[in-house]
Formats: sequence, C-alpha cells, structure tokens
Amino acid sequence: MNQSRLATRKYYSLPDPLPLWRGGSLSSVTLAYETWGRLSPGADNAVLILHALTGDSHAAGLPSDSDRKPGWWNPLIGPGCAFDTDRFFVVCSNVLGGCQGSTGPCTTNSESDAPYTTDFPVVTIQDMVRAQRALFDGLGIRRLAAVAGGSIGGQQALEWVLRYPDDVDAALLFGASERIGPQAVSFNHVGRSAIMLDPAWREGRYNPGEGPSAGLAVARMTAMITYQSQQSMWMRFGRFPTSRSASPDRFGEKFDVESYLDYQGASLSTRFDANSYLYLTRAMDLYDATEGYESEEEALRRVRARTLHVGINSDWLYPPGDVRATSEKLRALGKDACYREIDSVHGHDSFLKEWERMTELITEFLPAASSTQPRTAEKRAYATGE
Amino acid sequence: MNQSRLATRKYYSLPDPLPLWRGGSLSSVTLAYETWGRLSPGADNAVLILHALTGDSHAAGLPSDSDRKPGWWNPLIGPGCAFDTDRFFVVCSNVLGGCQGSTGPCTTNSESDAPYTTDFPVVTIQDMVRAQRALFDGLGIRRLAAVAGGSIGGQQALEWVLRYPDDVDAALLFGASERIGPQAVSFNHVGRSAIMLDPAWREGRYNPGEGPSAGLAVARMTAMITYQSQQSMWMRFGRFPTSRSASPDRFGEKFDVESYLDYQGASLSTRFDANSYLYLTRAMDLYDATEGYESEEEALRRVRARTLHVGINSDWLYPPGDVRATSEKLRALGKDACYREIDSVHGHDSFLKEWERMTELITEFLPAASSTQPRTAEKRAYATGE
Repeated sequence: MNQSRLATRKYYSLPDPLPLWRGGSLSSVTLAYETWGRLSPGADNAVLILHALTGDSHAAGLPSDSDRKPGWWNPLIGPGCAFDTDRFFVVCSNVLGGCQGSTGPCTTNSESDAPYTTDFPVVTIQDMVRAQRALFDGLGIRRLAAVAGGSIGGQQALEWVLRYPDDVDAALLFGASERIGPQAVSFNHVGRSAIMLDPAWREGRYNPGEGPSAGLAVARMTAMITYQSQQSMWMRFGRFPTSRSASPDRFGEKFDVESYLDYQGASLSTRFDANSYLYLTRAMDLYDATEGYESEEEALRRVRARTLHVGINSDWLYPPGDVRATSEKLRALGKDACYREIDSVHGHDSFLKEWERMTELITEFLPAASSTQPRTAEKRAYATGE
Repeated sequence: MNQSRLATRKYYSLPDPLPLWRGGSLSSVTLAYETWGRLSPGADNAVLILHALTGDSHAAGLPSDSDRKPGWWNPLIGPGCAFDTDRFFVVCSNVLGGCQGSTGPCTTNSESDAPYTTDFPVVTIQDMVRAQRALFDGLGIRRLAAVAGGSIGGQQALEWVLRYPDDVDAALLFGASERIGPQAVSFNHVGRSAIMLDPAWREGRYNPGEGPSAGLAVARMTAMITYQSQQSMWMRFGRFPTSRSASPDRFGEKFDVESYLDYQGASLSTRFDANSYLYLTRAMDLYDATEGYESEEEALRRVRARTLHVGINSDWLYPPGDVRATSEKLRALGKDACYREIDSVHGHDSFLKEWERMTELITEFLPAASSTQPRTAEKRAYATGE
C-alpha cells in the first residue's frame, strides 16, 4: 500500500474569529482537513481540492476510520495521477457549515455549551473560502499552485481567484458557474422543505442521531435526480421494476429507480446532518460570484490565475453554457481562461465519474513539473489556443 | 354572458361494476362531468376533453360554485373557439381516482361505509378510459368526433384510440407520449415520499380537511418545477429576492421563486386530496401504452383514428422526441398521424398557456364543419402532408 495514499483527518483551529460575509462572526472555527504528498521547501506546490455539497475532506485514499469510503476523487489524486502527489502537496478540507469535522450547525457553541443547530449563522461560499485561506496561513502556505473543485466546490475555486487573486496560480472549475439559476434554487427549496416537514426536525433542535432522516432522504432523492441526466437514467434504470423488494406496495409495483432513490436517500441520512444540508444548500443558492463588486466586469478583472472551466454537455444543474460564459467573459478581459467540455451522458455527476477525461483535462492544464515533464511544447500550445 | 359557456357539474353512476386493469373491480363508480354545446341529432359531434394530473371537469366556463377558477382550457372551448361549442358537444369528466367529484380514495366505500382512503385499488389510465367509455354509453354516444388532452390527459387520448379504435374519429395529444421515463417517475416518487413523510398523512387514514397539506405542498412544488423550463424560470423569477415577505428567515433571504413555489404548494393543498395525488401519479408512472399487447407494433396497428401529436420544444417532462416518436411509428404503419411542435419557453405547461398556437393547431387538425368551413382545400393538404 502506497504511503502517499494514506491520510488521516487533521484539524486546524483558526486563531482568530471569522468575520462573516453576511454580518457577524464566528468566534471559534475549526476545519477538518487531509493532505497527500509533501510540501516543497519553497511551499509552492500546494493544491487545494474543494468538495461538492455533501462531500468531505476524504478526497483521496482508501477507506479509513473516519471515512468508510475511498476518496471521492481517488482516481485523480495520488502518485502519477492527475493531481500527482509526487509533485503536489494536496489538501482537502471540509467546508465551514459542514458536518464532517469542520465547524457547522452540529458544533458546540462555546457561548451556550450546546450545539448551534439552527442558531448557526448563515454562511456563504465567501466565508468558506476565507476559512480555507486561514487554514493555509496556519500551514505556512502563502500561495497555492492550484485550487480545484466541482459544483459548489468549483464555485469556491472561483471565489478563491476573485478574492485572493495574488494567492492562486491556477484554478480548475468543473460543472461550476458564477451563480445557479432559479430552477436549481427550486430543487434546493424542495429539499429544505422536505427536511423541515419531517417532525423529527423539530425546528432544528433534534438530538444527535435523532434527526429528520426521512426528510433528509427526500432532499437527497431530489438532488440525485439533478445530478444525473434523462439519458443516463434511461440507460441505468429504464422502466424496470425493482429487484430490491419482492412484493408491490399498496400503490402498485415499484420501479427500480425508486428503490435506487430510496437507497441513496437513506444512505445520506446515515452520514450527513440535516441542518448542515439546510445551510450548505442555502450557501449554494446565495452565491453570486460578482456580489459585492460594482459590476461583473470589476469582479472578473481581479482574476490573475490561469483558469480552466469545464462544462458537461448533459449537465442541467450547472448548464455548460453558464460555465462557458464565465470563461468567455474572462478571455474578453484578457485573462488566461479556457473552456473545455466533458461529453458524457452522466450529467452533473460526470466530474465524479469520467475519470479518463478528467485526468486528461487536469493533466493538460496543470503546469508541467520542470524536471520531469516531457510535454512542454504541447502545453504552451494549449495555453495560448482554445 | 353566453349560455354555452355556463356549465354545471353533473354526475353519472356506472350501471355495472368496473373491472380494473390490474385486477379486481370497483363495485360502484361515479364520474363527475361537465358539457358544453349540444349533442347533434346523430350523436356524432361529441368531443371528450381529458384533464391533466390535478385538473378537473371544469375545462371551460366562468368560475362556478364547484370551481372557483375559470375553465382550464377556457380560451379553447366555446362558440367560435378551437373546440367550437356551436359545432361540438364538448364533454370533460374528472378522472377515476380523482377528488373532484369522481370516485376516488375520498369516496365512501359502500362495503365499509367509510372513505376508501388507501384501501382504494390501484387504478390505471386504462381504467380511467374504460370508465369514460361507460359514461358515453350512458350519454347515448357510441362514437366520438375527437378526444383531446395534454400530459396524462393526452395519454388517456392515446389509450382511447388504442382500446376503442372504432369509437374515435380523431385524437389530439399535447405533451404526451406512450410512457414516461425514469426521471419523471423519480419526480413523482419524490412527491409521494413527501406526502407520506407528513405525519398528517397517517398511512392515508386522515380525516377530511386534516390531510397532509404540507407534504402535498412539497409534492406540488416538485411537480411545478417539471412543468416549466429553465429559461421560463429565469425570465419569470431570475434570482430576484421575494417580495412576498419582508424579513429574511433564519437561513438568509428568500428568493422570489421560493415564495412562488410555497404559494403554489399551499394552493393545491386547499383544493386537492393527497391520497388522490398518490394514486394519480402512480397511474402516470405505470402507464405504458403498449402494455398487454404482444408488441408495440401490435398495439399501434389497432389505431384507426387520425391522430395529432404535439410536442413542446422546451418540455422535459414529456420530451418532444418521445411525442414525435409515437407519430412516426404510427405513420410507418400507414396511419394518419401527424406531428406538430409548439415553440415556447414555457415547457410542459405550454398546452395551458400558448393559446394562440394551440388554437391554430386544433383548428388546423379538426375536421371542418361541412356547412360553414371555407378552408377545405387547406385541410386536405394538411391531412396528407407533414
């Protein structure tokens, strides 16, 4: 077993209170994180990986005590992988507001000595990124070689290059745009409504382990539909009856896709906190990359990093046209932005499935290692053409 | 006020028990219906209008005692309208399993002297159409000039021409195909799960007026998203904050689209029965027009009616490709089927919004009145070309 694939969850407590984008502050913030590879003597090889909505810091590696699954980007992170841990010091932290070790609604509020639950303040992607910046200060890393993520993780990558233009060399955004549309907000609203409908939610004041698991399951089902495409659902489920339960319920036989959704819903409920789901989907809704700037142009003009914007042709949660639009606006401002597309039936989830294409896109975009990289000429061509 | 626009809800009780497609029978079935126009002496001018999921018999007319809204196809039904009540005897009945006057889960089961609730049997589109056929027997009408409907109503129109090929001259299907896909089943599953999650559902044994209104509201919200398109939601709601409530809730300010969904959800809950919603969405899921036949070809070969299949370019619940496919299969079998498309941003709901285009399509397709119709030549050209 390769040592660089092993990681244990570490914790970093911010030395100062975290001021919040929408006002107020959090007096005490801890981020859970994992790292792979080794920080270079010059501290110039750090790559920050940013997880999607219900993800965690376990981006790579085998199942561990704290994470029963292999890393969610495991095929992309490791020695010789797209994010080559022989070259890069890869870091992934659980987001602020999350429930996988970082400060969130489950955390004990030092002022009341009880979990925050719904007294937790509204947190935004801006806040998540500010907390990440503090983590890197703590790690003694001033500048990142790259930030990379999909979905809400990609929006954090975008926020990094807007907020800290001098601190990032390159950003890779997969299925992520400057803001989501009203349809995506609506699906989040349905999910939140289902959680709040569950009597176990109790206005958020449930005890650990007694949360609104059925409501969270319905929220997850709704989201799972948006992560896939009509075509991939036809291919995978068609109209086949379920094979998971022998007898029809009182409303007639169930379809396979229903059993699948039930399973996915129940599965998330065992590993995720419902209040955290409320806060994180809200952060997804609220994010508009250009908020707080005079204009979109003023915001995008700040970018100094090279950026890769990857759309997915079957993605309807973050439509490829929206992803492409950001890259085009950046290019119009003279920035080093490029757009690539993943051609896949898998919809939004493609950035968690299309490993070969993802590897190709990341490898093509990331700066070559000066000593070992044979494809310098190709890279240059790539950087100038689109 | 034109008399032919007034209608009162009437009731027809089937003289015989209704055998059910999935086995068993309903001993006593009543259908609520309304009519407009006058039956011709030859009883050859009847048009059956088939409502969508949560619709009712009030297809046309001003608000009445039983229906507080104007007819849901009001601009299409009336003197001089596309369904011209000076020519046609227009009938619309509430579906079996519904809750607007026809036998459904709310109806008292004569055997137990209590409402069926979830003891109501699984009903299918095949059963709905069989009950409608019995209604027309009762009205003394052997053959229909046309059947027309959108969505699940259009699927009933398709079922009519498959099951009773000798009894229908023409069928008009709007946003309706032979079966829905796994994504649409999934959205129905989310809706049903939300209803059952509501503690007021009580396994369906709620008292009238004490049903799972919050769960039904979430189901409705989910469905409302699928009736619209991304583009129409951008146009209508954008990312505007709500204007309906002054203060942000604890999770930050609400978007206008969220208030809209809340309103639509609450609105359905005041007029619709949650158990009925469970049964009708199940009927939508279960329907496959070719079920019970050796092959799709064997099924479609039965059709003798002229058929008009109208897809909507922005419809993702019943994608236009699926709608078109049925017409093409029918044509390949030598049938008089034609496909037309509505070009609209409004998604699936276009058949309830694009009145001008709907009027055009219906007028173009329906047989000309022999005495008053000046456009016979055009009509012939239409019938032979596509």
